Amino acid sequence: MEKMKIVATARQVPERVVSNDDLAELMDTSDEWIYPRTGIHNRHVVENENTSDLAAAVAEKLLAKAGWAASDLDFIIVSTMSPDALSPHTSAIVQGKIGADKAFAFDINAACSGFVYGLSVASSFLSSRRYQKGMFIGAEVLSKLVDWKDRTVSVLFGDGAGGVLLESTDEEKGLLSEELQAYGDRGEAILTGRFANKNAFAGEISPLDPYFHQDGRGVYSFATREVPKVLDKALAKADLQADDVDFYLAHQANHRIIESMAKNFGQPMEKFPTNMVEYGNTSAASTAILLDELQESGQIKPGMKIAFVGFGGGLAIGAQVWQL
Amino acid sequence: MEKMKIVATARQVPERVVSNDDLAELMDTSDEWIYPRTGIHNRHVVENENTSDLAAAVAEKLLAKAGWAASDLDFIIVSTMSPDALSPHTSAIVQGKIGADKAFAFDINAACSGFVYGLSVASSFLSSRRYQKGMFIGAEVLSKLVDWKDRTVSVLFGDGAGGVLLESTDEEKGLLSEELQAYGDRGEAILTGRFANKNAFAGEISPLDPYFHQDGRGVYSFATREVPKVLDKALAKADLQADDVDFYLAHQANHRIIESMAKNFGQPMEKFPTNMVEYGNTSAASTAILLDELQESGQIKPGMKIAFVGFGGGLAIGAQVWQL
Repeated sequence: MEKMKIVATARQVPERVVSNDDLAELMDTSDEWIYPRTGIHNRHVVENENTSDLAAAVAEKLLAKAGWAASDLDFIIVSTMSPDALSPHTSAIVQGKIGADKAFAFDINAACSGFVYGLSVASSFLSSRRYQKGMFIGAEVLSKLVDWKDRTVSVLFGDGAGGVLLESTDEEKGLLSEELQAYGDRGEAILTGRFANKNAFAGEISPLDPYFHQDGRGVYSFATREVPKVLDKALAKADLQADDVDFYLAHQANHRIIESMAKNFGQPMEKFPTNMVEYGNTSAASTAILLDELQESGQIKPGMKIAFVGFGGGLAIGAQVWQL
Repeated sequence: MEKMKIVATARQVPERVVSNDDLAELMDTSDEWIYPRTGIHNRHVVENENTSDLAAAVAEKLLAKAGWAASDLDFIIVSTMSPDALSPHTSAIVQGKIGADKAFAFDINAACSGFVYGLSVASSFLSSRRYQKGMFIGAEVLSKLVDWKDRTVSVLFGDGAGGVLLESTDEEKGLLSEELQAYGDRGEAILTGRFANKNAFAGEISPLDPYFHQDGRGVYSFATREVPKVLDKALAKADLQADDVDFYLAHQANHRIIESMAKNFGQPMEKFPTNMVEYGNTSAASTAILLDELQESGQIKPGMKIAFVGFGGGLAIGAQVWQL
């Protein structure tokens, strides 16, 4: 075990709720079509906020919950596939907003696996003993990356952010195992924000469609087939059986994928909680939002074993097992 | 010391060279204006390649130099502020192209400090003992982010990639120290690739200028004032004097910034090598390209102490000291 603890959790979603019925006024869709296929009724969508605003709100809540000062932080990592900008990076904006004067900051992008990959990076900084106190936030404003005329994609995503504070400890808590995998040969299955070559010497190059495109069927079969293998390896590395884990917090892409995983591991759905009904798919933020909701409702307790599972763009998969 | 070694270095730049004279045909500028202010004569610019193409070429060279198989790799990290896309991430494309079937992959963004920040992340994975063999590449196609009608910015940047293979070791080699800092309150000084809110519920929002904008004077004074402080701290953590370091490999933004640093530390320019004369500012790739050139020319030898120094967008600064 790599000893460390999750000191606090927090989340922030935009106030504006957009229901399936709201979407049905914009495009040829319906709650009857969306809900059975995805498990999604609502999603929250920004009006005037950008990704760093959601992340900075999470950051402030995290510090308040833990009673930490911003200057206690050694680092701030933000996982996002929908940053405010390519420069400045979103984590630096957060660092400036909260006045974390000793913290360095950088962004990572592993798309919908961003929560697990970000936790991997943050935890490795603690395990290296280089740093003791870190903040990790998954934050997305996917609403700026979808084509709101495309009913196959725009109904799936939402905006939001969630995060954790991590600290080194001598207690018997921490990261038990992780298994991370990439499938770059299947990267075309989830496309967004493509930047075409464009310079004065490259000749005429067609601009690329910047919007979200997803091979839904392909991603579904990929996820239901490959994600359990990765989770299996993470459990084996931690020398655990599926029954030993108290909660499986999986990326909230689709209710049916999560049902399939629970069935695959012979676990009741109570151990695979979901919240995409209210938020849709919030990519790197989804698991962090779910974790904070379970923390707030008292369902997550010290000593529990939690598995985090991410999958999506890249394609990438990740699983971690923690002892809280 | 965190024990590990740099097993191989490699670089890849586009074939097409664009000189200051070439630029003078496009815009109201001249070699006489550009060179004395920046130290730049040429830059390399892509024609048909994108960021992942440059990075994958570096990856292939690294494996060939080290005699490693792609399947030896535990992870692939790419630092970039100019990815092919927001999804798939550039590192996943590289993983797929080279067939690194056991490696996970993610991107990081710390702008022009991307080389030092990426080395920090990669080295912490090794120090955590979770992984033994990793690939880290800085890769940029900045030519797609600049406005080629803006003579204040387009003349400064170039495209390229460079990287290293890292491996755990029991030898007395590795990371001696690092100091990383963020100044997010000054993030507006370097802007590029801004994504405005854009959704069906946010009302009318003006699109943001996506091009590179830089407060050149502000960044210059920031860099000459703050970077030496960060490097000082990294040297102090490693218990070294400036004279003890064999080479200082700094981000290749501007020759005058590097001259100022060398003077500040009382070191000859021979210890602060530069190559922006040929490549311009290649952000996360610049230091990696320089490292590979020095390696190739035999100037860098085992046992040497090297300081890497990054600074730029975020704003962010980083310094690391290695024992090779």
